[in-house]
Amino acid sequence: MLLAKVIGNLWATKKQSSLQGLRFLIVQPINRHFNSTSDLIVAADPIGAGVGEYVIVAFGRAARTTIGRGHEIAYQTAIVGIVDKFTIEDKEYALD
Amino acid sequence: MLLAKVIGNLWATKKQSSLQGLRFLIVQPINRHFNSTSDLIVAADPIGAGVGEYVIVAFGRAARTTIGRGHEIAYQTAIVGIVDKFTIEDKEYALD
Amino acid sequence: MLLAKVIGNLWATKKQSSLQGLRFLIVQPINRHFNSTSDLIVAADPIGAGVGEYVIVAFGRAARTTIGRGHEIAYQTAIVGIVDKFTIEDKEYALD
Amino acid sequence: MLLAKVIGNLWATKKQSSLQGLRFLIVQPINRHFNSTSDLIVAADPIGAGVGEYVIVAFGRAARTTIGRGHEIAYQTAIVGIVDKFTIEDKEYALD
Amino acid sequence: MLLAKVIGNLWATKKQSSLQGLRFLIVQPINRHFNSTSDLIVAADPIGAGVGEYVIVAFGRAARTTIGRGHEIAYQTAIVGIVDKFTIEDKEYALD
Repeated sequence: MLLAKVIGNLWATKKQSSLQGLRFLIVQPINRHFNSTSDLIVAADPIGAGVGEYVIVAFGRAARTTIGRGHEIAYQTAIVGIVDKFTIEDKEYALD
Repeated sequence: MLLAKVIGNLWATKKQSSLQGLRFLIVQPINRHFNSTSDLIVAADPIGAGVGEYVIVAFGRAARTTIGRGHEIAYQTAIVGIVDKFTIEDKEYALD
Repeated sequence: MLLAKVIGNLWATKKQSSLQGLRFLIVQPINRHFNSTSDLIVAADPIGAGVGEYVIVAFGRAARTTIGRGHEIAYQTAIVGIVDKFTIEDKEYALD
Repeated sequence: MLLAKVIGNLWATKKQSSLQGLRFLIVQPINRHFNSTSDLIVAADPIGAGVGEYVIVAFGRAARTTIGRGHEIAYQTAIVGIVDKFTIEDKEYALD
Repeated sequence: MLLAKVIGNLWATKKQSSLQGLRFLIVQPINRHFNSTSDLIVAADPIGAGVGEYVIVAFGRAARTTIGRGHEIAYQTAIVGIVDKFTIEDKEYALD
């Protein structure tokens, strides 16, 4: 699971048929200096996160379990939690 | 799942027998500055994407489900959706 | 499995229902120069680690086995051991 | 699946018992500038690739399916196809 | 599977109960310039490798198969072979 920030939305009309009914979010993984340039992740959002929020992102079985439609789906990545607060080396980051 | 851009095609005559009948695309993952130099991914394309398009790429079970030939196949990676539009920090990117 | 250092805590009220009852820790993977800027990992902690400790982090099935609630859970990552001591090229690092 | 170039061979006498009868190749993943310094991958080769060739490398279930000895094996990575030709942004790369 | 060098040992008294009876090694993945600064991997060693040796490291099912205690274990990573010799672009590296 990664700590990530939701930085955008994504729309895809042409997609595998199981990929219906959930929003796609674009999330940026976070490093300790908050300057990660890692590749962007597309996550399904069954939790209700919004742009600007920090989230927990999971892959594979954990993502499919969160989506709750069994394991024969084309989703590989999902937001599994919305972060209220976190600390990094005694500094606290809280959602507004 | 990754946000990626289709940047090329790939042909392989000599391959595992299940790898028949689907085109291979070369895709470049995207970072927030659009200058990723990550390693290139080879994805099967059951959706019908073309060079220059942005796509959602998935790995493992999600890829195999999208391909729809069961789980005893040699495919590990597939395009699961073609992106119409996405936003990154309020900037919008739309397909032509 | 990765060698990582626990650098923070994380709280998430809104989350998949199986993600209850275990603390989330933020962990920083370690490279040989101890200056890794890799993306931060969120790990469930069924072992009892604390900030400042070095830990072994595992993903997927190994993480779920450590958590011990079966495989239909939304956890993908867990601390599976707390490090007492390690050596890197003959230099020894021991917990206080 | 990754686009990679075979850059070497590897021999290991002392190994898990299922790792018999297939050659190990060392492969270098490729980025768009052909200057990747990613970590080197060890792949089993059931296809018959040689040093200098471009290949498709797969991990996990796709690799095991290609090897064809069931799923209780110690192989995690295999060459699943030998590349004849690929294009990257309209430039064509063909095997000699 | 990765080509890696064993660079240290690791001890963890407090750990998931299945993580008993196998030594933990710290391994450094290798890139083509032998200067990788990738994050360090903790691998179980059922094969008998030592510090300074080059090894093949595998993850997930391949690691568990090598460990040979079924799939309900907390191990995710194992050494599956000890390298006798390898070549990279015609240069040969042999164990002493």
